[in-house]
Amino acid sequence: MENIFCSIITIGDELLIGQTIDTNSAWIAQQLNPIGVQVKRRVAVGDNKEDIINALNEEQNHAKIILLTGGLGTTNDDLTKPILCDYFGSTLVMNEAVLQHVTSFFKRRKRPMLAINNNQALVPNNCEVLFNEVGTAPGLLFEKDDTLIIALPGVPFEMQYLVSTHVLSKISKKYRRPTFIHRTLITAGEGESFVANRLIDFERTLPENIKLAYLPKLGMLKLRLTGTEISETDIEQHFSELKNILANIFVADQDIELEEQIGILLKEKNKTLSVAESCTGGNIAAKITSIKGSSLYFKGGIVPYSIESKQNLLNVNEHTIESTSVVSEATALEMAQNCLQKFNTDYAIAITGYLEKNDHDNQIWIALANKNFCTAKMITVPYDREKNTVLTVNSALNLLRLFILENP
Amino acid sequence: MENIFCSIITIGDELLIGQTIDTNSAWIAQQLNPIGVQVKRRVAVGDNKEDIINALNEEQNHAKIILLTGGLGTTNDDLTKPILCDYFGSTLVMNEAVLQHVTSFFKRRKRPMLAINNNQALVPNNCEVLFNEVGTAPGLLFEKDDTLIIALPGVPFEMQYLVSTHVLSKISKKYRRPTFIHRTLITAGEGESFVANRLIDFERTLPENIKLAYLPKLGMLKLRLTGTEISETDIEQHFSELKNILANIFVADQDIELEEQIGILLKEKNKTLSVAESCTGGNIAAKITSIKGSSLYFKGGIVPYSIESKQNLLNVNEHTIESTSVVSEATALEMAQNCLQKFNTDYAIAITGYLEKNDHDNQIWIALANKNFCTAKMITVPYDREKNTVLTVNSALNLLRLFILENP
Repeated sequence: MENIFCSIITIGDELLIGQTIDTNSAWIAQQLNPIGVQVKRRVAVGDNKEDIINALNEEQNHAKIILLTGGLGTTNDDLTKPILCDYFGSTLVMNEAVLQHVTSFFKRRKRPMLAINNNQALVPNNCEVLFNEVGTAPGLLFEKDDTLIIALPGVPFEMQYLVSTHVLSKISKKYRRPTFIHRTLITAGEGESFVANRLIDFERTLPENIKLAYLPKLGMLKLRLTGTEISETDIEQHFSELKNILANIFVADQDIELEEQIGILLKEKNKTLSVAESCTGGNIAAKITSIKGSSLYFKGGIVPYSIESKQNLLNVNEHTIESTSVVSEATALEMAQNCLQKFNTDYAIAITGYLEKNDHDNQIWIALANKNFCTAKMITVPYDREKNTVLTVNSALNLLRLFILENP
Repeated sequence: MENIFCSIITIGDELLIGQTIDTNSAWIAQQLNPIGVQVKRRVAVGDNKEDIINALNEEQNHAKIILLTGGLGTTNDDLTKPILCDYFGSTLVMNEAVLQHVTSFFKRRKRPMLAINNNQALVPNNCEVLFNEVGTAPGLLFEKDDTLIIALPGVPFEMQYLVSTHVLSKISKKYRRPTFIHRTLITAGEGESFVANRLIDFERTLPENIKLAYLPKLGMLKLRLTGTEISETDIEQHFSELKNILANIFVADQDIELEEQIGILLKEKNKTLSVAESCTGGNIAAKITSIKGSSLYFKGGIVPYSIESKQNLLNVNEHTIESTSVVSEATALEMAQNCLQKFNTDYAIAITGYLEKNDHDNQIWIALANKNFCTAKMITVPYDREKNTVLTVNSALNLLRLFILENP
């Protein structure tokens, strides 16, 4: 079956001067993939007529579906509607349904309506209007032979509403499409090239319609299998094989963050957690609490950034620090044990280390404790302060995940 | 003088299936702008030879500088190097400097080196190799008449290293560009449209060759004046005027993060800081400790995420919590005062609040204390968990900065 390709054109100067990070495109791709439409290209252009028209012309060489986002508002730098009118030889007509909606939209919000807001209801006469229940700018859908050109607002939740409510069903009705299945494996503790080396035979035996992609992060590696026109059973078989080969570095068989996995584990087991982190300075607690509902299992943390605070707030023995230094297995273990007690939790994790180059060779000690058992591991971190923080946090969260699994 | 345009081509299936959000392009645009190069288009394509070559051909119609990111690794889905070799009729040669670097890179990390890693040192014979000190894949720079085509790794910190160290100076040497002077003012506590309203007259009197850009962040607003072909004195005059108009919301007259400003203030005054943060869950401590040398003034923090830990670790009075609730002025003030004592610091900041929608209308209390004085302020946060965290952290850091200035 022929692939159906889509190009996304995002419009706005803010995308080109580095002010805005485009999150719309990723979201759109996630919606299109399951219905068998592949985003082939994403193009960002500025608020400039020539650039928008060039993009519109060029992308029709690459894709059957062109989604434009942005530039549908009412201010001077919103060019998308007039340009599309020009492009498709439209005249603007007042759409009564949209006008009524816009009027009641302002009324409901008790905000005065300006003359300029009426313009939202002026739509090209030769397009289909995609009614925008959650905002004032409707989507505009043009059909040109076998091509769909659809303009959507740039505001994420309005764009999302229009895609979910209108765009997906329009596309599904118009085109016959192949199906794609993605499966993601997360691993930790082994570099991309080492994993690739272990997967040479696996990759060789993969059928044509399954692709493997490597997506490295600091201390972690995501592996993604993408199957085209394939059965769940077929891709599952290859995915199982992949999991078996990499069983010793397995983290998850779905695209899920470590802090989320830890949350799921703790909730399942009805257990609690506390954190004592020196060099990571609050970053581990911040990750844990980024998960909605984390107050169910996370009791709190201490950031003992000075030697005094390690002694006064965590009761680390002065003698331990003097005899083994502040970055040592013994200090880390005491930190974890005392953290467990202070917060009265089922698990505790403690970190002490050097994030920047010094005589101590950037050692980080990570200790884990529950009521019966306590263990520590040393890692070395080779990058700058920022990357070393991320690497330490990723490593620590993975060790915590393993500790919870191994010490239920 | 002619504008110099750049197109950024980002390569990787993960960008098109919505797995990865492209943050590289925004960062690159931020670096190119100050040296007078304008990003005209950003194009994302998949790991596919035809698509990459199409993009390479097309973008040369739009820009003089083509930056490619991604696909420079050693695995099978890394296509950029072979495609560029084909495209420029190169043969691969072993680069001894890169080979030595890659070898010592693995040695320093005490990791075995695989045959495949040697491939990183194979480079096209007709390009300039951009030495990558922080990773193993070098950048590749091709010159084609007046066009620069530069391939960079997709890993953000490696890409950033190569742009900062090599790419900016190459571009600066090759092209005559208009000179730009940027001056940035940071403000906090007033929204973009309100500030714009106060600046109507100021904007009207700005000469043609000075532009004002609004760069909003949560709770903060950066204003950037960009002068083209202008003297320092000229732009300084307009910048002073801007500062005067916005004196009441002034944060800084340079592009410097709040946590850095706080660090400078505390070091100057030889004062110390501690943090007690409930709903922000470690994010404030993480910001403070992201600054190199912060252990000179930051003694540590407590993340009392449960009511018990507020009582047991911070000695917040049970009666206070029962009578005024856990999110209240009284609780916040006690947290700040007790934090100050526990860590024996000159300043303490405390946060307690609700990050997500509930009956309490998303209130956050921020309290500040030194030995003589204690004060608290309430803010409300209207977004989702993630954005509310950032907004709270920004607001808290700015209140801390003001408190230090007002209570030396």
